Amino acid sequence: MTDVDYCVIGAGFAGLTAALRLKQAGRSVAVLEARDRLGGRTFTEVRADGSWIDRGGAWVGPGQDRIHALMDEFGVPSYQQYTDGEAIMVVDGKQHRYTGTIPWTMSPWAALNLGAALFELGHMCESVPLDAPWASKQAGRLDQLSLAQWLDDNVLSRPAHDLLETAVAGCYTSAASEVSLLFVLYQMASGGGPNFVLGVKDGAQDARPVGGMGAIYRPMAAEIGDSIHLSQPVRRIEQDTAGVTVCAEELTVRARRAIVAVPLAIASHILYEPMLPVDRSFLHQRMPSGSIIKIAAVYDEPFWRRDGLSGQSAAPGSPATITIDACTDTGRPGILCVIVEGPIARQVGQLDEAERRKTVLGALVERFGDAAGSPVDYVEHNWTVERYSGGGMLSHAPTGVLTQFGHALREPCGRIHWAGTESSAVMCGWVDGAVRSGERVASEVLEHETATVV
Amino acid sequence: MTDVDYCVIGAGFAGLTAALRLKQAGRSVAVLEARDRLGGRTFTEVRADGSWIDRGGAWVGPGQDRIHALMDEFGVPSYQQYTDGEAIMVVDGKQHRYTGTIPWTMSPWAALNLGAALFELGHMCESVPLDAPWASKQAGRLDQLSLAQWLDDNVLSRPAHDLLETAVAGCYTSAASEVSLLFVLYQMASGGGPNFVLGVKDGAQDARPVGGMGAIYRPMAAEIGDSIHLSQPVRRIEQDTAGVTVCAEELTVRARRAIVAVPLAIASHILYEPMLPVDRSFLHQRMPSGSIIKIAAVYDEPFWRRDGLSGQSAAPGSPATITIDACTDTGRPGILCVIVEGPIARQVGQLDEAERRKTVLGALVERFGDAAGSPVDYVEHNWTVERYSGGGMLSHAPTGVLTQFGHALREPCGRIHWAGTESSAVMCGWVDGAVRSGERVASEVLEHETATVV
Repeated sequence: MTDVDYCVIGAGFAGLTAALRLKQAGRSVAVLEARDRLGGRTFTEVRADGSWIDRGGAWVGPGQDRIHALMDEFGVPSYQQYTDGEAIMVVDGKQHRYTGTIPWTMSPWAALNLGAALFELGHMCESVPLDAPWASKQAGRLDQLSLAQWLDDNVLSRPAHDLLETAVAGCYTSAASEVSLLFVLYQMASGGGPNFVLGVKDGAQDARPVGGMGAIYRPMAAEIGDSIHLSQPVRRIEQDTAGVTVCAEELTVRARRAIVAVPLAIASHILYEPMLPVDRSFLHQRMPSGSIIKIAAVYDEPFWRRDGLSGQSAAPGSPATITIDACTDTGRPGILCVIVEGPIARQVGQLDEAERRKTVLGALVERFGDAAGSPVDYVEHNWTVERYSGGGMLSHAPTGVLTQFGHALREPCGRIHWAGTESSAVMCGWVDGAVRSGERVASEVLEHETATVV
Repeated sequence: MTDVDYCVIGAGFAGLTAALRLKQAGRSVAVLEARDRLGGRTFTEVRADGSWIDRGGAWVGPGQDRIHALMDEFGVPSYQQYTDGEAIMVVDGKQHRYTGTIPWTMSPWAALNLGAALFELGHMCESVPLDAPWASKQAGRLDQLSLAQWLDDNVLSRPAHDLLETAVAGCYTSAASEVSLLFVLYQMASGGGPNFVLGVKDGAQDARPVGGMGAIYRPMAAEIGDSIHLSQPVRRIEQDTAGVTVCAEELTVRARRAIVAVPLAIASHILYEPMLPVDRSFLHQRMPSGSIIKIAAVYDEPFWRRDGLSGQSAAPGSPATITIDACTDTGRPGILCVIVEGPIARQVGQLDEAERRKTVLGALVERFGDAAGSPVDYVEHNWTVERYSGGGMLSHAPTGVLTQFGHALREPCGRIHWAGTESSAVMCGWVDGAVRSGERVASEVLEHETATVV
C-alpha cells in the first residue's frame, strides 16, 4: 500500500502533466499506467540511426500554447512540417496534384462544393460555446444530426462529399454516420475551426517537436521520478470520506483524491465504489474510440520531395487513405506516414501483417512511384488492438450524447477528477488539450486543499 | 476451480434458458450471476399478501412463442392485461380520455399526424431484413438518421410529435436524439411492427404470467439446481485451444465454452484474454443502456376501474410519464405501475427518495384523483443505479452502429458465445427474445461438439 497525496491514473500527456504540476507544487503523487510504456496516445520510437517515429499523436500547431509551454520548459524545439511542393488528391481513381487547401483541378463544381461546405462548417463552429456546447440555443438541433446526414444534405458533389467525409470523419477515426454534428462543430471550434483542424501549415499539423513527442514526455516522467508505475492497470477506485483507494493489478494506492486521465471507454473498465453518478457512468458507455492504423514507411531519403511532392495525399477509400511527410528535422531518412482511419482501418486490420503491408505499399507505389515500394523499414501501429487504448485517436460523441451527458465531461465525482484531452474545452482532441486538462485538474485538486483549510 | 461443460455468465432469461437447455441435453453447467438475485432485467417481488410486483420486464404478447413455451413447460398460465375503460392522454396540460390506439379528441390534425407517422414507421419496418438489418439497400440512409431527426422531419403537429417521441424513444429509455432510426425500425420489426410494440391488447403488453416473471425463472433455476452462483461478478474470461477459464469474484470455472448473457455495456466490463475481435469490442463500447425507473403504487383496490379508466395514461414530460394497470390476475390489491424513462428518469432520479415519491404521487393525483395520493405500498426500482444492469431496458444502437458493427451481435468469438435479448433477430428487446437467444446459443455450443466429433 503506497500512501500519497494524489493518485493519477494514466501516463499520457494529461496524466503526466497533472502529476508534474502537483509534484512541482510539493505534493506526493503515484502515477499508475496500464501499458508497459509512457505516452498514452502518443508513442515515440527512437530508431538506431537516431531518427524517430511518432506512432501516435505527432503534431503541434499555433494556439496550442500549453504544449508549447511544456516544450519550452524542457528545452524541446519544434520544426516545421514539410509542405513544399504539391499535394495529391485521388478522385475517382485519378490523381490531381495541387497546392493550397482545395484541389481546384478536380472540377470547379466539386471544388466550389468543398469550399462552401468548409465555409459553412466554419460559420456553424462560431455559434458553439466551447465551455458548454450542449447549452447553445441550437444544440438540440445540431446534436440530433449525424455528420453523415449533414454531408448528404449539404454537399451535392460526390467527389467533394467523399473528400469531406474522409477528412472530417477521419478526425474521429469513425464512419461519418457515427458522429454527432454538434460534436464535430465543438471539436473543430475548440481548435479554432475547420481550417485549423484540416490545415497543415498554420494548422494542427503545422510543426513537430524535435525528437518527437517522447522528447517531451520522457523528461516530464524523469522529473516525476520513480512514482510512475508501468503495467499497472487500475481495476477499482474506492472513495470514502477521507480519501480514495486505487487498486491496480499488483499495487494499491491510498490518496486524498484520484485523477483519471484515460480515454472514456477505458475509464468504463474501472469498477467505482460507490458507483459513479449516472450521467458520468452513462458517458463512459457513450463516447467510444475509433479505429486508426498509423504506418511509417522509412526510405533512405524522401524521394517524393525530388519529384516536387510534399508527401501529402488523400485518397478516399484507399487502404493508404492519407499520407504525409514524417521526416525528422534533418530530412534524413525519408519517412512517409500513412494514416488509415475508421471503417477502412478495420478492414485493413483484418488482413494478416504481410498482406496489409503489401496492400499499403501497393497503394503508395500507385501514388508516389516505384521507389515507394521498397522501404528500408516499415513500422505500423494499430491502436485498435491496443487493450489499454481501446482504439484511437479521440473519443467521439454520437448524436444526442453531448446534449444529454456532455456536462459530465469535466465535473468531478466526489474525490475523482477527470482529465484527458476529451475533457478540455480548448484544443479538445489534441495533445495540447490533454496538457490543458492535466493542468486544470491539478488546480482543481489543489483548490480543494484550500477549501478544506478555510 | 469448478470444471463443467459450459459456463454461462448471467442468470437473466437468456442465461437461464441456455443453462436449462444444456442441462436438459445432459451437459454440466455453471451459471455465474453478478447480482444477488435471479432474473436479470426481470425481477419479481412477491408481497406478503401473495400478490406480486414485476420490478422489471413484465409482459408477454402474441407471437412470443418461446416464452410461452417455457410457461407451458413450467405450468405457468397467463392472464390478460386489464384494458377495460378509457385511457388518458395529457396534451398541453389537458387530459383527454379515449379508447383505441389514437386519442382523436386531442385534435384531428394531431391525430392524423400521429396515425400517418405510425403508418409510415410500420411501412418502413417491412423493408428491414431481421437477420441482417445492416445489409438492406437503405440501411446506410436509415442508420445515419436519428429518431429525433426523423420525427422532426415527419411529424409536424407538436402534440403528435411529443407523444410519439415519448412513446417510441421511451422504448429505448433514451432521448430520441440518441437512437438510430434503423435500430428503431429493426427493433420494432423484430416484434412485428409499431402496433405490436406500442399496443396493449394483442400487442407487447397483451398479457402477464400469473405470479409474474419470477413464476417462470424460479422453477427454471430450480431445475438447473445448485450450479447457479449468485453475487459472482465475472472479471475475466480467458480462452485457450482447449477451453475457457472464467474468473469471477470468488470462483473460477473451467469449461469448454463460455456463454455471455448480459447487456452489452456490462459485457464491456469483463477483461477478455486474448482480446476480442475489434468489431465485437467496439460494439461493447457502442450499445449503451438507457434510464428507467419503474414504480408500483399499491392501493386496497384498483379505484380507477370504478371510474371507467383502464389505468393506462401517457403524459409527455411528466415525472409519471406512463402508467398502466399492474394488478395481478385477481384484481386485488390495486396496483398502478408508473414508468419513467430516458432524460426524465435521470432528472427524477436525482431527487431524494421522499421528494421523488411526492412528485410522482402528485402527478398521479392530477390524473386519477385524490385516491391515488395514498397508496398502502410504494415500490420503486431505478434500473439506472443497479451496477450490474447498467441501466435498462434494452441496449440501443446510436446512429451508424448497426451498419458498422451490427454483424458482431451474434457472431461467436472463438469459444465465447453471445446471448441476451439484443442478440435475437426475433423479439429483440423482449423477454421472449432473451429466451430465443438462450436457445440459439445452447444449439450453437452443442453443434460445436458434433463438429469436433466429425
